[in-house]
Amino acid sequence: MILPSLTDIRAAHSRIVPFVHHTPVLTSTQLNRIFGCTIYFKCENFQKVGAFKFRGATNAVLSLSPAERAKGVVTHSSGNHAAALALAAAMNGIKANIVMPSNAPDVKKNAVAGYGAEIKFCEPTLRAREETTRIIMEETGATLIHPYDNFNVVCGQGTAALELLDQINSLDIVVAPVGGGGLMSGTSTCVKGIDQDIKVIGAEPLNANDAWESLRSGTLIPSENPHTIADGLLTSLSDFTFTIIKNHVDEILTATEESIKECMMLIWERMKIIVEPSSATVLAIIKENPDFFRNKRVGVIISGGNVDLRNLPF
Amino acid sequence: MILPSLTDIRAAHSRIVPFVHHTPVLTSTQLNRIFGCTIYFKCENFQKVGAFKFRGATNAVLSLSPAERAKGVVTHSSGNHAAALALAAAMNGIKANIVMPSNAPDVKKNAVAGYGAEIKFCEPTLRAREETTRIIMEETGATLIHPYDNFNVVCGQGTAALELLDQINSLDIVVAPVGGGGLMSGTSTCVKGIDQDIKVIGAEPLNANDAWESLRSGTLIPSENPHTIADGLLTSLSDFTFTIIKNHVDEILTATEESIKECMMLIWERMKIIVEPSSATVLAIIKENPDFFRNKRVGVIISGGNVDLRNLPF
Repeated sequence: MILPSLTDIRAAHSRIVPFVHHTPVLTSTQLNRIFGCTIYFKCENFQKVGAFKFRGATNAVLSLSPAERAKGVVTHSSGNHAAALALAAAMNGIKANIVMPSNAPDVKKNAVAGYGAEIKFCEPTLRAREETTRIIMEETGATLIHPYDNFNVVCGQGTAALELLDQINSLDIVVAPVGGGGLMSGTSTCVKGIDQDIKVIGAEPLNANDAWESLRSGTLIPSENPHTIADGLLTSLSDFTFTIIKNHVDEILTATEESIKECMMLIWERMKIIVEPSSATVLAIIKENPDFFRNKRVGVIISGGNVDLRNLPF
Repeated sequence: MILPSLTDIRAAHSRIVPFVHHTPVLTSTQLNRIFGCTIYFKCENFQKVGAFKFRGATNAVLSLSPAERAKGVVTHSSGNHAAALALAAAMNGIKANIVMPSNAPDVKKNAVAGYGAEIKFCEPTLRAREETTRIIMEETGATLIHPYDNFNVVCGQGTAALELLDQINSLDIVVAPVGGGGLMSGTSTCVKGIDQDIKVIGAEPLNANDAWESLRSGTLIPSENPHTIADGLLTSLSDFTFTIIKNHVDEILTATEESIKECMMLIWERMKIIVEPSSATVLAIIKENPDFFRNKRVGVIISGGNVDLRNLPF
């Protein structure tokens, strides 16, 4: 298994920089006072398609050979990765096939279709998704761009932390949310490559704590049918992301659904920015572990801002 | 009647700059495509207390004489100006008395109380507000800081446009919302002082179009019991702000409630920032007047981001 290095993440950044937004880092005096530390929010909710996923998808698309580009790309996702790959492919004149469960919300179908991708619907099971994807790959020769179990995707996701450490000096801790582990893998590789002394913490919902369980036991233990408001963090680690996270992440901390909701509302109210529940998880673990973060300079990756405004949790 | 000049606004800016946020100017490729022009959003929703009102209140407080400072300030408001004056006074060690209607929402009462201001409740009528304010002034000698009918407040509000024109070159048009006219007065004085060729447009809800009516007729015509979702724009112009607006504003354009709601949702969804309905009015008039704005470089003042997240219009 070839693992990414800081050099790979720097190369990814050079590759994607003409295509991605250089997102701002925001702070809030009020939130700093409430939580007793200085928090720097790297705002990937302002990234194209509203999520960090556009970084990984763009790096993967730009890393294809000419022969691969001609045959297109494929993925199965109903979330931010689907929109990210659709747009990244469209911006580079590459065909994208997106496998989505037939019960995906219309708003997500429309977003992906709006970027010009071809959508193939399937039954809402992992088996049907993978089978449909396999058939497309056989028929078209398209390259699979997995949402996180992919070297180039992980390198692209790591570029958010690369920018954050360039924007803010002397961080003590960097926190990112953990779902499938793509963002966490890229973030931890980047941060530890730059400075071994910066602690890297994963934020996970207590209700989908497979990374916490896996790190504690030393074995990959997927979550079974997790239920959490943080819908971007339902997926479990792969062997690839688990290996990277074991190498580089200091600790996984978990947060309750109540904390996640409360912190989402706090960010909306105090910072006037829209973040999705998965992003609020990074603040929720700070809230639940005040001693760990007290008086520290903490960089957090706000992963995205895609929420259904007609169906909010508050 | 002494009217403010660009010089006064520059002086206000020097005075308040250590206290206020220098807010960012954001753009959205998607919104530019939808509306056929290039829009620069001056984000006063990221200002302290979540609204431009903090600029005017701070300038008013800093312009007091030592004798006036010792006796404190007073205003009647249940909105952003109340919170703004409370915080501006607290930051300068000055006592603030805020007259609020007894039926003001708890969230607003708590915000003002949280900044350490003394709240006096009164019946929810203009007469009761003014009478209660008068009594406080007599008893304490406090200086009235009116939300918009005040020279120093208008000069402070104009500093948002001063920053905008410094941040973005070659604007064709500047748009600000019109309620009592404080922001519009400061904005138009500033913009025309810098460049007579930039058009200055006021954005008003059709349902509270007193500025439109007044400018058309040449006489001040207050709105009577207006109903609009843009709750920051319910107030009518004063003689003072009407005089300034007649001098400097090229045109008032109005927007329907439907447009305001739609544009508020568009800003939330596409830009991932929280803006209040009054702020969405500036985009709604662009939507309703596409020929006027086509291919222009348009600066808009996003006035604030204070909304009740548990009671959204969508």
